[in-house]
Amino acid sequence: LKVFSLNSNHKLAEDIADHIGTTLGKCTVSAFSDGEIKISIDESVRGGDVYVVQSTSSPVNQHMMELLIMIDALKRASARSINIVMPYYGYARQDRKARSREPITSKLMADLLETAGADRVITLDLHAPQIQGFFNVPIDHLQGVPLLANYFEKKDLEDIIVVSPDHGGVTRARKMADYLKAPIGIIDKRRPRPNVAEVMNIVGNIEGKTAILIDDIIDTAGTITLAANALVENGAKEVYACCTHPVLSGPAIQRINDSKIRELVVTNSIPLSEDKQSDKVTELSVAPLIGEAI
Amino acid sequence: LKVFSLNSNHKLAEDIADHIGTTLGKCTVSAFSDGEIKISIDESVRGGDVYVVQSTSSPVNQHMMELLIMIDALKRASARSINIVMPYYGYARQDRKARSREPITSKLMADLLETAGADRVITLDLHAPQIQGFFNVPIDHLQGVPLLANYFEKKDLEDIIVVSPDHGGVTRARKMADYLKAPIGIIDKRRPRPNVAEVMNIVGNIEGKTAILIDDIIDTAGTITLAANALVENGAKEVYACCTHPVLSGPAIQRINDSKIRELVVTNSIPLSEDKQSDKVTELSVAPLIGEAI
Ligand SMILES: Nc1ncnc2c1ncn2[C@@H]1O[C@H](COP(=O)(O)O)[C@@H](O)[C@H]1O
Ligand SMILES: Nc1ncnc2c1ncn2[C@@H]1O[C@H](COP(=O)(O)O)[C@@H](O)[C@H]1O
Repeated sequence: LKVFSLNSNHKLAEDIADHIGTTLGKCTVSAFSDGEIKISIDESVRGGDVYVVQSTSSPVNQHMMELLIMIDALKRASARSINIVMPYYGYARQDRKARSREPITSKLMADLLETAGADRVITLDLHAPQIQGFFNVPIDHLQGVPLLANYFEKKDLEDIIVVSPDHGGVTRARKMADYLKAPIGIIDKRRPRPNVAEVMNIVGNIEGKTAILIDDIIDTAGTITLAANALVENGAKEVYACCTHPVLSGPAIQRINDSKIRELVVTNSIPLSEDKQSDKVTELSVAPLIGEAI
Repeated sequence: LKVFSLNSNHKLAEDIADHIGTTLGKCTVSAFSDGEIKISIDESVRGGDVYVVQSTSSPVNQHMMELLIMIDALKRASARSINIVMPYYGYARQDRKARSREPITSKLMADLLETAGADRVITLDLHAPQIQGFFNVPIDHLQGVPLLANYFEKKDLEDIIVVSPDHGGVTRARKMADYLKAPIGIIDKRRPRPNVAEVMNIVGNIEGKTAILIDDIIDTAGTITLAANALVENGAKEVYACCTHPVLSGPAIQRINDSKIRELVVTNSIPLSEDKQSDKVTELSVAPLIGEAI
């Protein structure tokens, strides 16, 4: 069993290797002068079961190509099985045709991985669980909720309510609430008539409570910060937020810092680059979770 | 018949459309906040034969993903045939395992294009003609030599010799020489013993002649500028150079400007970005050549 790291999550890959009692396989991922990816695997993988750790986080196209080329090299080097550990699955939100003539990029990514030679995929909190069906190879779908719930449990917060920032996330909020033995609430946004401003209605009694907002992905953080502020304005005592995948693009960190969110808890499925550090953000490691799945 | 352009060669795509008497199909290729590619095709392609113009030049991974996602969108929009016009085929130099455990990325690219749904590929001067065999769909392999030779013919240069900058390019030089009714020469580099400097030996009589160096790709321009300088030092009157694909990465333009090359003639298979402009470089359009092939 060998674990290799590409460029997206080096620290996590080391922690996973550590967790299962091994060290990272030797490989060099660099670039030619013209920007083409150059990969060399510096130890034999013949007949071995190989795990490659790579999230297709930003820069997504670069990370995806690194992964595909690595799979090709491993296949040609006669690895017995090629297992992809992809904590964050990029392009997951492009999972259906919402309008005419749109691509379904997350299905395309599944096909590309299989074409390159992936034998199995381990991933975490897919934006839609249906993406599992885009693969013909086995896919292990891990859950981040227990890890996040566990963190909040240890904080011993009182009078909790778990809140979903939109209709799509209610099942996730319910799962979290089960762990914390708490009720749930929903931010119920709707547009009464076309061209009229959205109304933000809060379903559930939040008065004086400690609200925990949960989502799978926080990208530009617009939804979550608006939700947090609405909760406080409507009587919540404090607001925490959590998510599995901290994409945090564009204005996200600024919005979080400026918001009423007291603490944002995330996992290291996507590492927090230097420009994404904030005192408000706490990072939990999914290395033990993934280590168990390997 | 519809021609669409992605982001690598917009001007060339327009010229191709022009050449075949049509205008470019409407599509928008942009990016979400997190860098994921967003494509929308803004007119019907149902039942149509569609041509997509895209070189996988730098940034190669971005350009490749744009192309794959576009193919996916066209396929799902019920195009009858999806034809890829890829004047420059990126990753072509990764076409074999030169060392253990290397990927064969140019075969991977062929597989990815077919998986996405490409029905036919039109390309120009592949680094190795064997890459045609990496595809199971029809591939049209166009030649840049006639275009380049024609340009030099019109210049009415006297006493020409066509020179290959290395052993691998002799067949190409021979083809050019046939067009120009000229003899050929070869820059014959070899290392007499390990750890001894390379010796640059010139095969063919260049004394007082106008030498035309020809290669398929000029990347960092090390080979071609050393060759040009050696030719002048050894008695050539003037040195021209030409290639199909002006990759021109890193120090290339500086080297060309500093070299004894009088003029470098290239095609627009890769557009010359602003930082690659030089008075020495002449660009010829492959639009008519590709227009004929469509
Ligand atoms: N990278 C992305 N960033 C923001 N929005 C996206 C991205 N990819 C897809 N989408 C859009 O997000 C919507 C799907 O999100 P959801 O409704 O949460 O499943 C679709 O309208 C997509 O066009
Ligand atoms: N993008 C690239 N830039 C420079 N060299 C490359 C690139 N891709 C592959 N190569 C190397 O170029 C050699 C093949 O070139 P050639 O011998 O001209 O066919 C191999 O040793 C490759 O490792």
